[in-house]
Amino acid sequence: MQLPDGLEVIVLLGSISDRAVAEEMLPVFSDFGVTAHVAVCSAHRDHERLARLIPEAESKGCVSVIAVAGKSAHLPGVCAALTTMPVIGVPAVNSGIWQDSLYSIVNMPPGIPVACVGMDAGRNAALLAVQHVAIGRSELRGKLKDFRDKMRESNRRDSAKLQQELSGK
Amino acid sequence: MQLPDGLEVIVLLGSISDRAVAEEMLPVFSDFGVTAHVAVCSAHRDHERLARLIPEAESKGCVSVIAVAGKSAHLPGVCAALTTMPVIGVPAVNSGIWQDSLYSIVNMPPGIPVACVGMDAGRNAALLAVQHVAIGRSELRGKLKDFRDKMRESNRRDSAKLQQELSGK
Amino acid sequence: MQLPDGLEVIVLLGSISDRAVAEEMLPVFSDFGVTAHVAVCSAHRDHERLARLIPEAESKGCVSVIAVAGKSAHLPGVCAALTTMPVIGVPAVNSGIWQDSLYSIVNMPPGIPVACVGMDAGRNAALLAVQHVAIGRSELRGKLKDFRDKMRESNRRDSAKLQQELSGK
Amino acid sequence: MQLPDGLEVIVLLGSISDRAVAEEMLPVFSDFGVTAHVAVCSAHRDHERLARLIPEAESKGCVSVIAVAGKSAHLPGVCAALTTMPVIGVPAVNSGIWQDSLYSIVNMPPGIPVACVGMDAGRNAALLAVQHVAIGRSELRGKLKDFRDKMRESNRRDSAKLQQELSGK
Amino acid sequence: MQLPDGLEVIVLLGSISDRAVAEEMLPVFSDFGVTAHVAVCSAHRDHERLARLIPEAESKGCVSVIAVAGKSAHLPGVCAALTTMPVIGVPAVNSGIWQDSLYSIVNMPPGIPVACVGMDAGRNAALLAVQHVAIGRSELRGKLKDFRDKMRESNRRDSAKLQQELSGK
Amino acid sequence: MQLPDGLEVIVLLGSISDRAVAEEMLPVFSDFGVTAHVAVCSAHRDHERLARLIPEAESKGCVSVIAVAGKSAHLPGVCAALTTMPVIGVPAVNSGIWQDSLYSIVNMPPGIPVACVGMDAGRNAALLAVQHVAIGRSELRGKLKDFRDKMRESNRRDSAKLQQELSGK
Amino acid sequence: MQLPDGLEVIVLLGSISDRAVAEEMLPVFSDFGVTAHVAVCSAHRDHERLARLIPEAESKGCVSVIAVAGKSAHLPGVCAALTTMPVIGVPAVNSGIWQDSLYSIVNMPPGIPVACVGMDAGRNAALLAVQHVAIGRSELRGKLKDFRDKMRESNRRDSAKLQQELSGK
Amino acid sequence: MQLPDGLEVIVLLGSISDRAVAEEMLPVFSDFGVTAHVAVCSAHRDHERLARLIPEAESKGCVSVIAVAGKSAHLPGVCAALTTMPVIGVPAVNSGIWQDSLYSIVNMPPGIPVACVGMDAGRNAALLAVQHVAIGRSELRGKLKDFRDKMRESNRRDSAKLQQELSGK
Repeated sequence: MQLPDGLEVIVLLGSISDRAVAEEMLPVFSDFGVTAHVAVCSAHRDHERLARLIPEAESKGCVSVIAVAGKSAHLPGVCAALTTMPVIGVPAVNSGIWQDSLYSIVNMPPGIPVACVGMDAGRNAALLAVQHVAIGRSELRGKLKDFRDKMRESNRRDSAKLQQELSGK
Repeated sequence: MQLPDGLEVIVLLGSISDRAVAEEMLPVFSDFGVTAHVAVCSAHRDHERLARLIPEAESKGCVSVIAVAGKSAHLPGVCAALTTMPVIGVPAVNSGIWQDSLYSIVNMPPGIPVACVGMDAGRNAALLAVQHVAIGRSELRGKLKDFRDKMRESNRRDSAKLQQELSGK
Repeated sequence: MQLPDGLEVIVLLGSISDRAVAEEMLPVFSDFGVTAHVAVCSAHRDHERLARLIPEAESKGCVSVIAVAGKSAHLPGVCAALTTMPVIGVPAVNSGIWQDSLYSIVNMPPGIPVACVGMDAGRNAALLAVQHVAIGRSELRGKLKDFRDKMRESNRRDSAKLQQELSGK
Repeated sequence: MQLPDGLEVIVLLGSISDRAVAEEMLPVFSDFGVTAHVAVCSAHRDHERLARLIPEAESKGCVSVIAVAGKSAHLPGVCAALTTMPVIGVPAVNSGIWQDSLYSIVNMPPGIPVACVGMDAGRNAALLAVQHVAIGRSELRGKLKDFRDKMRESNRRDSAKLQQELSGK
Repeated sequence: MQLPDGLEVIVLLGSISDRAVAEEMLPVFSDFGVTAHVAVCSAHRDHERLARLIPEAESKGCVSVIAVAGKSAHLPGVCAALTTMPVIGVPAVNSGIWQDSLYSIVNMPPGIPVACVGMDAGRNAALLAVQHVAIGRSELRGKLKDFRDKMRESNRRDSAKLQQELSGK
Repeated sequence: MQLPDGLEVIVLLGSISDRAVAEEMLPVFSDFGVTAHVAVCSAHRDHERLARLIPEAESKGCVSVIAVAGKSAHLPGVCAALTTMPVIGVPAVNSGIWQDSLYSIVNMPPGIPVACVGMDAGRNAALLAVQHVAIGRSELRGKLKDFRDKMRESNRRDSAKLQQELSGK
Repeated sequence: MQLPDGLEVIVLLGSISDRAVAEEMLPVFSDFGVTAHVAVCSAHRDHERLARLIPEAESKGCVSVIAVAGKSAHLPGVCAALTTMPVIGVPAVNSGIWQDSLYSIVNMPPGIPVACVGMDAGRNAALLAVQHVAIGRSELRGKLKDFRDKMRESNRRDSAKLQQELSGK
Repeated sequence: MQLPDGLEVIVLLGSISDRAVAEEMLPVFSDFGVTAHVAVCSAHRDHERLARLIPEAESKGCVSVIAVAGKSAHLPGVCAALTTMPVIGVPAVNSGIWQDSLYSIVNMPPGIPVACVGMDAGRNAALLAVQHVAIGRSELRGKLKDFRDKMRESNRRDSAKLQQELSGK
């Protein structure tokens, strides 16, 4: 399998069971016009392929890695050891347990940082990756500001709608 | 006070008591030749100045923010709301308590991600910021790889030294 | 949108998804004859509007703020930084996780206290706000004591009913 | 022993071992000109005296209660059951353990709220009590705003001092 | 309402919502021929009645108290302060949260112990109360040993049954 | 080694390192005139001796067992399986960690309850054992009430002393 | 009941309610051709039988023990005290609570180790037991390596399938 | 550097700072006559060397791996991915924090088990490795039983000594 040219973000899932977290990311990449590629690649079951995929991504122009994993989640840290691109770790929740994946990702030993986001936070991971891409592609910064404006407007609309409904009670 | 031209990373401390975490960062920036500026600016006590500092940093060319804070640590999230640069949050440990700052930083609401690193992890935060800068300044990537090589060598020297000492027992 | 004159309590939700917590408050305000207003206003997505709403509420006579938020919940703390009215923080539970919002609210840095109540405790937050209003409106104290008497009576009725049912088994 | 006339805040300690938390409060009350009284009164060892002290305080004009307690800390909740004044609970840390007192205070059953502040947060508890008093004594609001201004200035001075020291390195 | 003569165990629930925990106890008391009485009596909403019920129970011959409560659960500790009978605390689970009630019960301040059992452990609380009663009524000891024998037999039957089913697969 | 005749309480330590917890108990037994015996007997290292000691204690008249253990603390549960006397478990703190021993003791499987007290709570465990003994020896009840009166007096003296010191400041 | 000759692994469940965890193990033993036997035997309810079963297993050639238990889970530790075979502990999750069984198993006192695996991790426990058996039966090592190859292939197929589905969207 | 022939256990430390944990293991290996080798080899800084060391150890006859690591501790899991020997993980405590390393080790994804022992439990890890070696070297089983006898005797001596000291008070 070949990574696409012009790749900007690579998304790695430890297991197919983390698929929903990745699917939340795709509309973000599509809205911002960022080229992303999703692969399932376990740190423990297929380190060899991981060690090929990450430098290949880098050679295609990729600047940001997202790694999603649950339980004793080593994927983000193992990716971080394989590259000097910033690596975003997403702790996956598993049967209601989240402490294991959070602590396995966030407190990396000195020298190999991981950028941990919230539990199951696929959307926020994608936005952070877009912010990484925007460092080298300044036209994205304007789009990110527009996105913030839209969020603010949506928050205001929610407020107006709630007041209307509550006053109608 | 004026931020320096060519600023690449701004480091914000919620309180002067987090100073040691910042001091750990300075040799990293100096080794990589990255221009950084450290300021104390509480999210709660001086939001106004924060709201001036961050766009000013951005206008000087800054591409990465580091925010260190303890207790119910809002500084990283408030910074993230003020910019679309990636914001690195460092949870500070306080009298042995760390859950409060970790959870206040890592699980940001949708739309405003923070890149959380480990507890008191000043050095890792600085390295992650250098990785951010390296997205736009590719010569840093080679330096980051050299740094990894040095860590590997140091790890090997530690191993040799320990074996020698243990066998001499 | 205009805040009502004679406003006594302002209730702020970080997101429309915390709506159920607010709806639990309304019968309390209505029973005690306290004028309250509910708005959705995220600390991260719309700080600007928050910074207008809170002083406006204060100028209308408001004496107590309730802020409900989940995840890395900054809304109560950000409100507290914008006013010297007492601010009540309600940690919202999200997909069974509550440690993040609790710790993001309760352990505020020195100088900016937040009055944290229980998880999803909309009703208790409203009662505490009524207790705040009662400081300046002494006729509410009698009503608060009556409310306590009713709770006691209801507790006794529950006891009688349970005994009857258990003895009939 | 007689409570002073014009009492505004009563501070209750579960045990003399929580004394340091109370001593942190006294300069706050003194700076704001708020009349406070400190007593040691365990919820478990002397409920009878507690049940006399609290209504007596209320009859003297008191509008806010602060209760400090550690371990399975029931004092704030028991005080809250004895009055309709707002009760501020301060979880005391004991041999590095804080979860017990925090959870014993913050998640009160419906109908009897407690306003929980941070662990060992005597100073913040006192400030919140001053905010309570300010509801009925409006001249305190200006003083509270001045206090915020001073904190902001002190935060700025810390920033300037740190920059000077770091640049001199 | 009158407590029965010959009362041996009094069971107190903070709220009617803890009813299922009490219902688990009744067959235990009935199997061992121990006289028990269940009442709903909140520590916060009806301290006055609690302070009457407990000495009345003691005067009827009661030797053990069981108190069930959730959230910041003060009922067991408040009972323990009202008597020198051993008090068994049962932390109730609430919407999946249990740390609050466990820590509110188990780590009592010096001088007023509570005997904490497991989360929602109505059956174990009842057995422990029977063990208390057996201190003064020695014929119960034989029954308790029989109960242990039955549990052992049931454990062995489960083992035989499982092996049969698994080998049939 | 022979257990003393008239033994009322047996105290078992998993390891000699829990000695300080036991030493805190001795003055309690001595003040109340209760006959206690302390032994070190690990559940894992010497189950055989444990299985002799406990029935021997029972045959001497013992009515209550205290078991102190740290880490994955099985001693209280193993004792409870060997007797139908009430067993009090004391979770020992080890290098600042207490969750392991607390959770290993408090949440016993159905059928074999343990009465868990607070972390390192030797004194409270001894008091609870005295309350057990008092079920069969009613003259101890008066002594237990006197002890409560003394605690109340001591709490009042602490209050008076603190007020004097604070007012002298 | 008789243990089979040539027994290699004995699996013990504290309660029949942990049955699903054991059923996950059986295909593993069957795939690797390892002789295993499952029994229900509570540490607390039937120590006597446990103390017979474990040496009997050892005498049949058994080299590895798996013990599954929930709540204050003592079974793995009690097994470990009865043998010098390696004992694998599986913490069972109970009504969403897992901290109790994990901490009751993993932090064993010095001298009696338990090999703790993940929560409800029946399959991993069985694989670890096969790894134990493979120490003395080297032909199993090749099978274990094949199993790893199959996992890698399955991980790659999942990746290919996900990419196909996502690109078809 | 060359691994010794006849190697039975390899001990890997993520960092030289975990040295004390390894030093606790050496007397165990020496007492049991087990050949062990200690190396420092970080999973993140030197995966390449790890991937050489582990198969080399296996080819020398090694049957058990011990991996010690702190923070987001990936070393045990990464070792487990590189071999089918049983891998023992030791979570190292760091500045009083242990949840991170424990959860990073114990809850491994399906297919790659790790045998987790207690926090900083070097001695127990070494004993478990000896139990692994004993599977293929049956004369060690007798030594392991002798070791248990010695522990029992030492436990009894501690008991006798404590009683003597307490009775002399």
